[in-house]
Amino acid sequence: MELKLDSNGLLPAIIQDDKTGEVLMLGYMNPESLKLTLESGEVWFYSRSRQELWHKGATSGNRLMVKGVWLDCDRDTVLVKAEAMGPVCHTGNPTCFFQPLAKEPG
Amino acid sequence: MELKLDSNGLLPAIIQDDKTGEVLMLGYMNPESLKLTLESGEVWFYSRSRQELWHKGATSGNRLMVKGVWLDCDRDTVLVKAEAMGPVCHTGNPTCFFQPLAKEPG
Repeated sequence: MELKLDSNGLLPAIIQDDKTGEVLMLGYMNPESLKLTLESGEVWFYSRSRQELWHKGATSGNRLMVKGVWLDCDRDTVLVKAEAMGPVCHTGNPTCFFQPLAKEPG
Repeated sequence: MELKLDSNGLLPAIIQDDKTGEVLMLGYMNPESLKLTLESGEVWFYSRSRQELWHKGATSGNRLMVKGVWLDCDRDTVLVKAEAMGPVCHTGNPTCFFQPLAKEPG
């Protein structure tokens, strides 16, 4: 399926906890990291800061085991449902989205 | 809170159904659309193709009512939990992520 890459040749990839539905992080993939993700069953990103393929959790052990991958209608964004082997965020939080900008009512 | 904008002055914004946890779409916000989103309680994006503020659902009626907004650890991505007033995708699908790239096992 043809991908629509951004000006840097990347796609944003949303990582969602397969069991709880919690959105864990957003990373970026190039076609090669998407291919590696689909083939290996573990999430690979492309690190924009380091400009290299990034096997998430290869160092920390907090890998992301792929449960399903979807492309959006525009073919420019990926959704990965995954099981996290540990905290996804470099801060140690289970999710990167821990700073509220507006309170959840009720 | 200081935002880390991309080279186009934008932040990716993940929209998640507040009730089901389903990831519905990914759009882009500039600081003004984020401000409008927080103030109005409805999701505003910045349309990259039209280069203008985009009040999601203003035409279709399929607006997104904000239930909570989070910023990620890097301050470069937004997560919005929302209630959708109708199908989010321009195809009529409830979610933009309807094309599987890898099958969900089990």
